[in-house]
Amino acid sequence: MTVTIKLGQLAEFLGATLRGDPEKAITGLATLQEAGPAQLSFLANPQYRKYLAGSQAAALLLKAADAEGHGGDVLVVPDPYAAYARVSHLFDPKPKAAAGIHPTAVIAADAVVDPAASIGAFVVIESGAQVAAGTTVGAHCFIGARSVVGEGGWLAPRVTLYHDVRVGKRVVIQSGAVLGGEGFGFANEKGIWQKIAQIGGVLIGDDVEIGVNTAIDRGALADTVIGNGVKLDNQIQIAHNVQVGDHTAMAACVGISGSTRIGKHCMLAGGVGLVGHIDICDNVFITGMTMVTHSITEPGAYSSGTAMQPAAEWRKSAARIRQLDDIARRLRQLEKQAGEVTPDGNASSDG
Amino acid sequence: MTVTIKLGQLAEFLGATLRGDPEKAITGLATLQEAGPAQLSFLANPQYRKYLAGSQAAALLLKAADAEGHGGDVLVVPDPYAAYARVSHLFDPKPKAAAGIHPTAVIAADAVVDPAASIGAFVVIESGAQVAAGTTVGAHCFIGARSVVGEGGWLAPRVTLYHDVRVGKRVVIQSGAVLGGEGFGFANEKGIWQKIAQIGGVLIGDDVEIGVNTAIDRGALADTVIGNGVKLDNQIQIAHNVQVGDHTAMAACVGISGSTRIGKHCMLAGGVGLVGHIDICDNVFITGMTMVTHSITEPGAYSSGTAMQPAAEWRKSAARIRQLDDIARRLRQLEKQAGEVTPDGNASSDG
Amino acid sequence: MTVTIKLGQLAEFLGATLRGDPEKAITGLATLQEAGPAQLSFLANPQYRKYLAGSQAAALLLKAADAEGHGGDVLVVPDPYAAYARVSHLFDPKPKAAAGIHPTAVIAADAVVDPAASIGAFVVIESGAQVAAGTTVGAHCFIGARSVVGEGGWLAPRVTLYHDVRVGKRVVIQSGAVLGGEGFGFANEKGIWQKIAQIGGVLIGDDVEIGVNTAIDRGALADTVIGNGVKLDNQIQIAHNVQVGDHTAMAACVGISGSTRIGKHCMLAGGVGLVGHIDICDNVFITGMTMVTHSITEPGAYSSGTAMQPAAEWRKSAARIRQLDDIARRLRQLEKQAGEVTPDGNASSDG
Repeated sequence: MTVTIKLGQLAEFLGATLRGDPEKAITGLATLQEAGPAQLSFLANPQYRKYLAGSQAAALLLKAADAEGHGGDVLVVPDPYAAYARVSHLFDPKPKAAAGIHPTAVIAADAVVDPAASIGAFVVIESGAQVAAGTTVGAHCFIGARSVVGEGGWLAPRVTLYHDVRVGKRVVIQSGAVLGGEGFGFANEKGIWQKIAQIGGVLIGDDVEIGVNTAIDRGALADTVIGNGVKLDNQIQIAHNVQVGDHTAMAACVGISGSTRIGKHCMLAGGVGLVGHIDICDNVFITGMTMVTHSITEPGAYSSGTAMQPAAEWRKSAARIRQLDDIARRLRQLEKQAGEVTPDGNASSDG
Repeated sequence: MTVTIKLGQLAEFLGATLRGDPEKAITGLATLQEAGPAQLSFLANPQYRKYLAGSQAAALLLKAADAEGHGGDVLVVPDPYAAYARVSHLFDPKPKAAAGIHPTAVIAADAVVDPAASIGAFVVIESGAQVAAGTTVGAHCFIGARSVVGEGGWLAPRVTLYHDVRVGKRVVIQSGAVLGGEGFGFANEKGIWQKIAQIGGVLIGDDVEIGVNTAIDRGALADTVIGNGVKLDNQIQIAHNVQVGDHTAMAACVGISGSTRIGKHCMLAGGVGLVGHIDICDNVFITGMTMVTHSITEPGAYSSGTAMQPAAEWRKSAARIRQLDDIARRLRQLEKQAGEVTPDGNASSDG
Repeated sequence: MTVTIKLGQLAEFLGATLRGDPEKAITGLATLQEAGPAQLSFLANPQYRKYLAGSQAAALLLKAADAEGHGGDVLVVPDPYAAYARVSHLFDPKPKAAAGIHPTAVIAADAVVDPAASIGAFVVIESGAQVAAGTTVGAHCFIGARSVVGEGGWLAPRVTLYHDVRVGKRVVIQSGAVLGGEGFGFANEKGIWQKIAQIGGVLIGDDVEIGVNTAIDRGALADTVIGNGVKLDNQIQIAHNVQVGDHTAMAACVGISGSTRIGKHCMLAGGVGLVGHIDICDNVFITGMTMVTHSITEPGAYSSGTAMQPAAEWRKSAARIRQLDDIARRLRQLEKQAGEVTPDGNASSDG
């Protein structure tokens, strides 16, 4: 599985300035501390600069400023992290599937699979579905009726697309992800929940990535929509009729309730929850484990996650939280006694 | 995939009063804003009444009061949302599987599959399992030894039932759900966790819905039990020996720890967590991301989720939470100085 | 499915002192309250001692002290819960798979499957992968290129191992778990996320258990590492390059962000979240739904989960949390007026 690429080839691939031996063989990538004498490394985060001098790496991706003082072989690039991202794919040991249809796959007569697509073992593709050129569909995938996967995509083994799910170009979907599940729609009649058929679909843009075991429900009436360039980590829940704007990223374990709209270039950290039927504007950053209960109209950072304390201290804080209303009233009472009614005090007083 | 139903047929199906053309063809359902001239819509939430006048819908499901002032075709019903729920199934584009067993399915000789059941591609059904009439088992499903699926059910592709899982009638299970996994049972001996075999099963009532990638563990000794009419959204975790009462609904990402019992007609919002070995009575509503740490004996609403603030403001609040015990003590000190020991003050003071 | 074991055999198996009839037939295990006259039970938690006298069990696992006053048949053991754990496996109705390869399995020519392994229906094993003796690979499992599963393991149906995942001996993996998914690695270039190939693998120690639908991502450069004896419950997310120390246990719905290291013998309760790039030392216990935002260097218990209140009370507390900074400033103001600047007051004051 070892790939060997010459340093000169990497310089050419990246458009980098090479300072060193173009014939030097590179067989992999590693961190500054772990790289061996045939591996390429990089400095992106300044806090790792201390490891520069001692690195055993064959060569480094460095900014011009960092390259100056460094003695070893260097590829000088404007953005070492971006350069590392590009080079990483050259050393990826992920098997490349050959084009063609595995003999065990079950494909409906009227499904359209491009000859330049790869369909794995035990895949099921139902009536009217389409898989475009250059797309890999891993073993055990299910592609429901009329669903479409655009060109250049990669579906890991065991991905499920229900019917009427349209996926754009160059989309990566990890194992266990489910697109088009029936959203949580029920009408309550005298205490009994009556199911509402979920007749909308799912629309996924281009260059989207969807993580392991992430669920994106189909729309109740219209479609659930994920924009171009959106990146969804593992274990995420996207409810029916959610809309996610282009280039928004969500870390693992986020949950978005039904019909909520999220803007472009947002970032949601891990474990964030959003209630339904709200709007989040573009360029919003929500920190970890925050509960978002209303719309956000101003770009910026928002939070409500509480950081841990030693349990004995936390128990005291938590008990006091329950007394907070009482504490605030008593404070107000003392202020009145003291004849102290500041504008600040008024602003936050009761009534 | 277009279904066409005449307005008069819909009136008959619903027992609705038709005010309009019974021959008008309806081809789908949509919201008031999005409905086209061949689609049916409805007004359930009063905040959408503003869209009534401008709707292009072919006809509307309306209450008598709303129908009065409306000029277009109307189906008058007592509960438009419930009527929409019923009608939605007529327009559901979900493929209906034909009865019969796909030739690729692997079915144990002593398993019993009703001739009126539908078994998809690559399904595995093990020894002694049973699938009743009118039930669809989607592709890639696994039904373990002695497990039973009642009549009229629908298992989406890729649902896993371990052994000894009994599922009632008309149960819907979405992709990726796992019923009967081995619960988290370990005995700690000198720091080493020793596995406890999970020898109980899972019992699912009638008319239950189980969402995408939801997990319901088997019991350690007795069964894990889900009552009739329970609705579980996606990504939920139900631990061993949990009992959920009839007609309780849980939104996505809820986690219930082992041996906890939940009453009937409860509602758990998204991201709620319950510790183990507690009892929740009937008719309890728990708001989003709440942590339930003890039993609840009174019906009503319960919360602990903290709503977001702009991050800069939240950082101040969060820092102060850590000082709360100190703040409360200092307030008490001031009160003593002020000679002010109200009953309220006493009630919440230290000691 | 009924197993029958004589009481004398159980005594021998456990090394227990039998007080009673060695020929008595035991057919199962149950709790003190539920056990019938052919079932074995146990007393581990003192709060269940009240059920001792009335238990219908055929025999009980008891400590010497509890056995003294008890009239029925008893197996006297030093640790009844550990004894129950050991005995439980004798009564486990889980089907044992026969060695051999199911004819539908698709196995690469150069994969190595031990003749004493069991490979289920529709399993896919890719090039260079290995499955050791005594290991069961359930139906619909996928074992990627060069991945290795050690001896004596049990993979439930539908487990996915990507390429280059190395699993130790006696490892149990529940359905829907995914090992080796591509972690959430992207470089942001002018607002566009560029994927970073995840070229590391996953390394799982011996005697590990991995729960239903749990995800363990592969490393970005080096491996993600799970130590020996680690127990992971359902719906857990382990990001790339996380390291988990030996014998640490995590309850359901925990999320660990990238590159975080967790020590040995830690316990994480349900719903806990950890940010990335932090270190947790050995012997740390984190309570439910806590957010861990920085490294922990001292063993002990840590918390930030807020316990529920009735919603009306909680709304007041929550509103006051937003006023906390103002409350603290006003308190400080009153203290100044009162001429009261205690050391405590200073310690927690502004500025």
